[in-house]
Amino acid sequence: MADQYAQSGEDKQPAEIPAIRWEESPEGPVLVLLDQTRLPAEEVERVCTDASALVEAIRSLAVRGAPLLGIAGAYGVALAAARGFDVEEAANTLAGARPTAVNLAVGVRRARAAYLAELAESGDPAQGARAALAAARQVHREDAEASTRMAAHGLALLDELLPGGGHRVLTHCNTGSLVSGGEGTAFAVALAAHRVGRLRRLWVDETRPLLQGARLTAYEAARSGMAYTLLTDNAAGSLFAAGEVDAVLIGADRIAADGSVANKVGSYPLAVLARYHHVPFIVVAPTTTVDVHTPNGAAIEVEQRPGYEVTEMAAPQAPVTGAGGGLAVAPLGTQAYNPAFDVTPPELVTAIVTERGVVSPVTADGLAELCGDHAP
Amino acid sequence: MADQYAQSGEDKQPAEIPAIRWEESPEGPVLVLLDQTRLPAEEVERVCTDASALVEAIRSLAVRGAPLLGIAGAYGVALAAARGFDVEEAANTLAGARPTAVNLAVGVRRARAAYLAELAESGDPAQGARAALAAARQVHREDAEASTRMAAHGLALLDELLPGGGHRVLTHCNTGSLVSGGEGTAFAVALAAHRVGRLRRLWVDETRPLLQGARLTAYEAARSGMAYTLLTDNAAGSLFAAGEVDAVLIGADRIAADGSVANKVGSYPLAVLARYHHVPFIVVAPTTTVDVHTPNGAAIEVEQRPGYEVTEMAAPQAPVTGAGGGLAVAPLGTQAYNPAFDVTPPELVTAIVTERGVVSPVTADGLAELCGDHAP
Repeated sequence: MADQYAQSGEDKQPAEIPAIRWEESPEGPVLVLLDQTRLPAEEVERVCTDASALVEAIRSLAVRGAPLLGIAGAYGVALAAARGFDVEEAANTLAGARPTAVNLAVGVRRARAAYLAELAESGDPAQGARAALAAARQVHREDAEASTRMAAHGLALLDELLPGGGHRVLTHCNTGSLVSGGEGTAFAVALAAHRVGRLRRLWVDETRPLLQGARLTAYEAARSGMAYTLLTDNAAGSLFAAGEVDAVLIGADRIAADGSVANKVGSYPLAVLARYHHVPFIVVAPTTTVDVHTPNGAAIEVEQRPGYEVTEMAAPQAPVTGAGGGLAVAPLGTQAYNPAFDVTPPELVTAIVTERGVVSPVTADGLAELCGDHAP
Repeated sequence: MADQYAQSGEDKQPAEIPAIRWEESPEGPVLVLLDQTRLPAEEVERVCTDASALVEAIRSLAVRGAPLLGIAGAYGVALAAARGFDVEEAANTLAGARPTAVNLAVGVRRARAAYLAELAESGDPAQGARAALAAARQVHREDAEASTRMAAHGLALLDELLPGGGHRVLTHCNTGSLVSGGEGTAFAVALAAHRVGRLRRLWVDETRPLLQGARLTAYEAARSGMAYTLLTDNAAGSLFAAGEVDAVLIGADRIAADGSVANKVGSYPLAVLARYHHVPFIVVAPTTTVDVHTPNGAAIEVEQRPGYEVTEMAAPQAPVTGAGGGLAVAPLGTQAYNPAFDVTPPELVTAIVTERGVVSPVTADGLAELCGDHAP
């Protein structure tokens, strides 16, 4: 496998390490990823020199999160082109590495299209590679800009829905700068509220099985100086019942044309709880997450992940003992149901916040209008 | 601390070790507990020679589960009496070891009353101790009988609600023979359905933070040869949405006079999901769990447990690293919200199954009628 661990952050006050960066090393270009499976225990960078190393990093969730997967996919194509690998093959394996995340395929497509267009015009693969890299950088830059705009739209929506301020926001999984060229999606909205003094508390769902909330969102919230509290996913019900949640903010991995939202497993139960308790349930995602070719929730393919993610605890410092490298917590031979995502129907979503504005109520027409130029 | 690890089960086909037993050792009577914090990795017995060792075992959840806590509490008083310790002091610390579990206080009260009555009559503490032990054995025996009757009532109810058979039952936490003098509460109903060939699948919520579902219910289901599948608590929503859950069966730690049910955290979200999906939500508990002195859900004290149960992973074989002895999974200093229980209001409970019969719909009058002689 053409990757290696490059750098370990021993520092107590670590510098901001970007989730992804392109680097021109003396041996050729590389893609450097902050390995998210090892946070918050260690800040370790992982270097990819080809698309298959990146595919492995995507599958193992070393790099994850809808917007970041789009960026990674685009850079992966650029990397294959720059290194002289088969660009078509790289694009295909990258696009299929995780089936639910639509941004990944979108990012791959853009870099591939740029490569092919330039190749057709100049006939020079090196020119094609430069075009692919330019496209990847563009995807990266656009995502950072989209993040800023989503944060502004989301904050305005929060203030409109909750005019009293002092927002107590519940979030699930991780949607901050670790998943984005900018400050993320749902987390960016909470961060914007924090910066203007209107976030009273961020409730952080730990997000089993892989604990992206405990490991990554808590890490980002701590770094940003936000008032946050971690909870097991199943304790959210008690917070709702006690009136301690003013709004739910989550990201999305794919939004169907009818407004159905595929997001990290555990999002749908929050949507049902939010509805039962009359709390706004807000999805924050760039328009690239909207897939007009997926008509509705039933058409969204949900990635099923290995059972050992549930039957073993993959703590970041865990010694290798089980089949998945974690500590066994269930009897040997236990079968597990482990969907990576669930689907929330549009009627349970109060609003979808994108970089182009807010869709509320969530309807197919409203979404189509906002994402006009993404239509077939 | 007057307890020690007595025996380690190395066997691949382990014998049935009872969750609790009274033993007359040459050095005096002892209470032997199967240490539930070490299951399923190891079957280790823990020997208590005094009430404070038992209190420690209760607080650390080495012994747990509403009915079993009642039995343990009664034996704890008998142990203090038999060993010549201060019975009043033992009764008080035992009764207060876990505030939400009402059975614990009930068991303690019965053994203490038997001790005091006999002491008043005979003036002989040794006679009092024998009376306390007889009362504890009676609590133990009654619980086993109650378990058998709950299983029969529960199975009849399942068959009535779901005439088609082939039940797919979702359960949360652990409610089998590990928590009971018999086969338990909710789990006993699923087991009864399994024995008559009417259980198609037991969906086992892992039950964060302490994973009683993954560690204990999966262990009991595997031993009983049931078809079971483990899932993260937050994946239950996907099962409901897919129509894969026919009924939810849970236990209870305290039922208020109005029918509000305190049970392991995560029960309430399941009740909301069950209501949203028109799935029966059934609580199985002995009438000793009904506390007529607690008028409603708001009056139930919910035990808050240490944050490290959430910020660290307490896998059974975990090396000692964090403050709680587990592996840190969240940044240092992370605050956690960790209620042990939540409260489900009666309007979300389809039925309460007790050893005396079924209350459905769940009303204060229906409960009072069934638990007549427990009234003040």
